[in-house]
Amino acid sequence: MMPTSAIPFDDIRALVRGMPGPDLAAAEAVRARDSVLTKPPGALGRLEDIVVWLAEWQGRAPPAVNRPMVAIFAANHGVAARGVSAFPADVTRQMVDNFGRGGAAINQLCRAYDLGLKVLDLALEVPTADIVTDAAMEEADCAATMAFGMEAVAGGIDLLCIGEMGIGNTTIAAALFAALFGGDVADWVGRGTGLDDEGLARKREVVAAALAFHRGRLADPLEVLRRLGGRELAAMAGAVLAARHARVPVIVDGYVATAAAAVLYALDPAAVNHCLFGHVSAEPGHRRALERMGKAPLLDLGMRLGEGTGAALAAGIVRAAAETHAGMATFAEAGVSGKSAAP
Amino acid sequence: MMPTSAIPFDDIRALVRGMPGPDLAAAEAVRARDSVLTKPPGALGRLEDIVVWLAEWQGRAPPAVNRPMVAIFAANHGVAARGVSAFPADVTRQMVDNFGRGGAAINQLCRAYDLGLKVLDLALEVPTADIVTDAAMEEADCAATMAFGMEAVAGGIDLLCIGEMGIGNTTIAAALFAALFGGDVADWVGRGTGLDDEGLARKREVVAAALAFHRGRLADPLEVLRRLGGRELAAMAGAVLAARHARVPVIVDGYVATAAAAVLYALDPAAVNHCLFGHVSAEPGHRRALERMGKAPLLDLGMRLGEGTGAALAAGIVRAAAETHAGMATFAEAGVSGKSAAP
Repeated sequence: MMPTSAIPFDDIRALVRGMPGPDLAAAEAVRARDSVLTKPPGALGRLEDIVVWLAEWQGRAPPAVNRPMVAIFAANHGVAARGVSAFPADVTRQMVDNFGRGGAAINQLCRAYDLGLKVLDLALEVPTADIVTDAAMEEADCAATMAFGMEAVAGGIDLLCIGEMGIGNTTIAAALFAALFGGDVADWVGRGTGLDDEGLARKREVVAAALAFHRGRLADPLEVLRRLGGRELAAMAGAVLAARHARVPVIVDGYVATAAAAVLYALDPAAVNHCLFGHVSAEPGHRRALERMGKAPLLDLGMRLGEGTGAALAAGIVRAAAETHAGMATFAEAGVSGKSAAP
Repeated sequence: MMPTSAIPFDDIRALVRGMPGPDLAAAEAVRARDSVLTKPPGALGRLEDIVVWLAEWQGRAPPAVNRPMVAIFAANHGVAARGVSAFPADVTRQMVDNFGRGGAAINQLCRAYDLGLKVLDLALEVPTADIVTDAAMEEADCAATMAFGMEAVAGGIDLLCIGEMGIGNTTIAAALFAALFGGDVADWVGRGTGLDDEGLARKREVVAAALAFHRGRLADPLEVLRRLGGRELAAMAGAVLAARHARVPVIVDGYVATAAAAVLYALDPAAVNHCLFGHVSAEPGHRRALERMGKAPLLDLGMRLGEGTGAALAAGIVRAAAETHAGMATFAEAGVSGKSAAP
């Protein structure tokens, strides 16, 4: 049996234990300013909550989004050979090239919202092992990939959107969710990029077989990640953890990115409090996962593309919320009357 | 009894009868291009639907959002003297001044998303008559205000967001919805900018009294608008109608803006097919109204500010959707493999 507490994972555990909490003074300063801006209290709804959240996790008031970045984590999966995707595994590399040339959906969204874009190629030519018959990664590989993912939080960014590309990775995410949160395998497995009924049935069998193979060794969330996860999952978990320490709020994209966050959530539910879940995907398990974690997604647009596209759309709203809070006049500045006393 | 078919309203009716339909060829061209873009079919969810909708109503493929504009329609209401708002009626003028100086929430959102902003002052110093004891407007005033609202569709804009400012106008909107769609008055009356329980009870009584006063004369939607509506409602209805003829798609903001669209819907449900409902407001009657009209709002962020703020947020997404469609590479251009055959 593999050791479950070798040195590399111990370092990760120490980072989780040592993560900073919210800046409550910054949050209070945002609330105080919000209460005198020229609008009825509460009238901007979730935009107001977003600004408080940004202040808590950036540790400043007013918060600002000046250097937002989308990071796409790309990897390949041994399990893809089992016909669990509507697209061939070559597409992972082809889409990474498409990101590089600016032709993908995420490129257009980054341009539209003026977001930086970074693509992390996680050893694309070396797929992880097939989770039906093996652990996806050795502990050293998994921990090193998490550490590599931490590099996404560099360059003075102040908002990080995490997304992914990896043919077969909704299968991986389904296995992770089933291992972390339990429940029926069928509840976690969806059509991904567009499987037909036969493919969907095969995908369910594959996830069930993987869970059966690793049964009894899935109590520790980091072991779940090592055994069932892919490299983009490990790297995204590392990025989310590093962002917490660097005081960079995170917008999590869809089903697969949420599975990476769920590994940290399973270690400590507070470990994803600096994460906003940008949208709920059309992949049915995503809504279930968000409910399980008690997280309300910002958008619900029936998207299921990945690449960080849902997170990028949410980033456009998050930045606008910050700018609205920072730029609005107060009642006193504008000479606007406050609420009436009795009519 | 007032005549219900004098000349001015007949001109409006002719515009409704003569409105153009969707450009089905442009929609088909968008669908054809979408099917070869480097993403799984349907993976962008509502973003894909939005681009088809833009093409249908702009009459071009690909559609583009190069000159989007937010128009805020501001007016005052005799009924405001009855204590139906948490804020005094002076705030309408004060907020119009705030828009002019750039201090309101909508100013920040327009800056964030690079949207034009126009404020239409609809005789602010002359409130409409109190709907509890009188018709809000004469037919000539109502029709002239609709015609004035049509001016919002000028300057070569290619997307129009309609919003409003008017202390007391959620009372007006509630009366309009109750008259147009029926049901219990209490279902349409909410707290607006933040009424307490006593104020809410008073607001319900006021709406019920207005409906009682005009009973038997509310069969024609334009008569409903004239008797119960305010000038910003009439002007927004005019703007929506003019936009249809000018092939400018419209994003409708919240509860009050939707009431203006509902007048046209009641004349002909197809009259608002070129409208996207940008968000669902926290004002409870808004969700009910959208359901009644069979419209799915784009965003659900608990907002209830008006000013076009919900529509502006939606405009940021609509423009990004158009840019994504126009800018993405095709499978052939990018050398990306399509769906697998059998695995």
